[in-house]
Amino acid sequence: MTDSDAGPNATAAGVRPLMDLRADGHAAVDWAANYLERVGELPVLAQVKPGEIRAALPASAPDEPEPFADVLRDLDAIILPGITHWQHPRYFAYFATGASEPAIVAELLAAALNSVSILWRTAPAATELEGVVLDWVAQLLGLPGGWHGHIEDSASIATMAALIAARETTGRDLVLCSQQTHSSVQKGARMAGMRLRKVACDDRQQMRTDDLHDLAEAAVIVATVGTTASTAVDPVDEVGRRCEQTGTWMHVDAAYAGSAMVCPEFRWAFEGIERADSLVVNAHKWMLNPNDISLLWTRRPADFRAAFSLTPEYLRTPDAEDALSLSEYGPALGRRFRALKLWAVLRCYGKSGLQQHIRHGVGLAQTFERWVAAEPGWEVCAPRHFSVVCFRHDGSDELNERLMHRVNQSGEIFISHAVLDGRLVLRLAIGHPSTTEADIARAWELLRASY
Amino acid sequence: MTDSDAGPNATAAGVRPLMDLRADGHAAVDWAANYLERVGELPVLAQVKPGEIRAALPASAPDEPEPFADVLRDLDAIILPGITHWQHPRYFAYFATGASEPAIVAELLAAALNSVSILWRTAPAATELEGVVLDWVAQLLGLPGGWHGHIEDSASIATMAALIAARETTGRDLVLCSQQTHSSVQKGARMAGMRLRKVACDDRQQMRTDDLHDLAEAAVIVATVGTTASTAVDPVDEVGRRCEQTGTWMHVDAAYAGSAMVCPEFRWAFEGIERADSLVVNAHKWMLNPNDISLLWTRRPADFRAAFSLTPEYLRTPDAEDALSLSEYGPALGRRFRALKLWAVLRCYGKSGLQQHIRHGVGLAQTFERWVAAEPGWEVCAPRHFSVVCFRHDGSDELNERLMHRVNQSGEIFISHAVLDGRLVLRLAIGHPSTTEADIARAWELLRASY
Repeated sequence: MTDSDAGPNATAAGVRPLMDLRADGHAAVDWAANYLERVGELPVLAQVKPGEIRAALPASAPDEPEPFADVLRDLDAIILPGITHWQHPRYFAYFATGASEPAIVAELLAAALNSVSILWRTAPAATELEGVVLDWVAQLLGLPGGWHGHIEDSASIATMAALIAARETTGRDLVLCSQQTHSSVQKGARMAGMRLRKVACDDRQQMRTDDLHDLAEAAVIVATVGTTASTAVDPVDEVGRRCEQTGTWMHVDAAYAGSAMVCPEFRWAFEGIERADSLVVNAHKWMLNPNDISLLWTRRPADFRAAFSLTPEYLRTPDAEDALSLSEYGPALGRRFRALKLWAVLRCYGKSGLQQHIRHGVGLAQTFERWVAAEPGWEVCAPRHFSVVCFRHDGSDELNERLMHRVNQSGEIFISHAVLDGRLVLRLAIGHPSTTEADIARAWELLRASY
Repeated sequence: MTDSDAGPNATAAGVRPLMDLRADGHAAVDWAANYLERVGELPVLAQVKPGEIRAALPASAPDEPEPFADVLRDLDAIILPGITHWQHPRYFAYFATGASEPAIVAELLAAALNSVSILWRTAPAATELEGVVLDWVAQLLGLPGGWHGHIEDSASIATMAALIAARETTGRDLVLCSQQTHSSVQKGARMAGMRLRKVACDDRQQMRTDDLHDLAEAAVIVATVGTTASTAVDPVDEVGRRCEQTGTWMHVDAAYAGSAMVCPEFRWAFEGIERADSLVVNAHKWMLNPNDISLLWTRRPADFRAAFSLTPEYLRTPDAEDALSLSEYGPALGRRFRALKLWAVLRCYGKSGLQQHIRHGVGLAQTFERWVAAEPGWEVCAPRHFSVVCFRHDGSDELNERLMHRVNQSGEIFISHAVLDGRLVLRLAIGHPSTTEADIARAWELLRASY
């Protein structure tokens, strides 16, 4: 037995990268800290054209190793100009998010451990910590006790999983959702080979419960707490009551707004949540985690397990038959240690910090809403329940769309749009913890100057 | 406008965690470096009972923030005893993997940027780097030019996506795979609402092409290069030829063995790969990346896009209509910046380093195979194509299973099993770059001493 490096056919020590984990790791941490300190000075929407980043990169991987320092250098030189800065305090598009420091560092630790929970025994701590932090968050959001929680990568996959569990449980193949439901529901239904019908909405963009004539034929209905366009809240309690009569599965999509339930004053939006068969909340939206960590709870874990469990011989573990393997509750077999970052966030912020974070965002949205409502020629276009304001100038759709492009191209703010009642509206979404009143004041100033 | 921290209803500065990114980040990097240096001294299979980690954790999240240093402390005190060490040089179970330093640090950078590619414009650099590194790897593996590559979280999801694309393209709903195909194909078919039939295998565990009578009815057939049980290689070229006659989609699962194709001497296993409609290779298996990064290529991108594209109004970007949004090619809308770690690995190892890594693992497996073959009372049970050796003692299945539990419980090595031709076989899978000949020698010594 030798320990020398014997080259191409080495059977002793393996190959090493051109890197020193301590030195290069510290440099990367410093890079991240510097980035977060100066991100507010960068253009929030990347100012590149399609193909520009690709053109700046070599056509092939290097034949020989390059030092990690070169990667860090090119991150600045080549990659950064093509980044749309989700960590920017004036990122107001779609749903604004914030990846916090405890979670960022936890991702490094999770990668170093590379604990893969295909089975309980391949990752006992990752499996059990996942259960524990999902229980913690369930308490923080005021969910009923005893629900089973696990993590999926995205709400798209979590929702698809819920549709499949409903299909397998009910033996039906119809999905109901509203005209305002997120497109991932339609996509999930298509993937699962299920039919879909969109229920009408009222003038507040909420699902109309007088349009549920086919509920008894449906496998599942998706109710949304905080729709993507305008953060509307479907009548979860009423839909849930109706589902109990028809044996229909109710899946609640609270991907964005669910995090707000850490504050009791927003719990009105979760009225009837105990009737939900499954619920998704994205911790990577408004709970200070970077992508990807979508929290999925169910009060019907046996139905999830029946839909997703499949244990071939090579995954049988006779020594731990009674242990919970979370891969039996969802689509993927190999699952990374996503619970670690959520654990770090919950501990380094605490309940009080999470509440303060939500209230900070809602407070800023209230302020912005007041400014719009008070300004002649501008209009608030939908009830502002949480931290998103839908508004428009009273000119044409074209004018509002041009206005949006103009402010986005400035690089100072990034907003997005939606269509409500056939009219284009602008959306200002607040979610990053570093956003201040000065940032929304700048947005408002820019908007008024640009139409 | 004030910038003071105004408490619960603050509209100025947001809440901060109890953490200093530089100091705590450096401590975390040092923790990771120390961990990787000493992991070989820890018991590779976690020595805890189900429920033990959960019991050591509080029942609720803290009300008030705790310092990040406490998280790091509890990582050692509570979490580490429940970790099965995938980074251990004597982790030989399932498919052994190695999460390398460049990728570990890149995960921190990706989390700090939190670049979410729902659309091209929300993450131009992440989108284009993903295309570039998939092209780089395609070249390294000798794939045909012009294929479209993107990243999914797991082979489970990548395979499900391929089945769905095949279903939508062919209008058929039958999936064919072999008796040795990974269980994720059966799970994927179930999720997609498709029927499945398992094709018989020959005595080398390869798919039998004389059992394809219903190929013309099938939407898709899954051929495997490197099966989970014994790394068998299905006849891709022959299956592909047949598929061309019947209009059946061929998906190739090379989740494990695909990485070996960076070495020309293993390319025999990819003969006919140009006939594949889609191909999955897990960079988190044998390509030095931590979970999760599953590479999915297709020569039919238009069919993937037709299956998965769905653009509601709020995702319309009239200013970048012609730009490629990778969410249109797979199940998830929100996609994290996984390409960054692959880029770091490809650069810090280079083609030569990746080749050396593969050859190192295969060389060790060859050595172990020779030892088993030369030892009376022991037997090699399947052809060893890559870095996995299937073997057994010539006693009963029960004896071999007891033997496996005994060596695993020692904490010195971790191996797993499979059933081939109705007999239980032990699997020694090599994949971590730090594994040396001394490690496999210790495994062999332990096995011989434990029966």
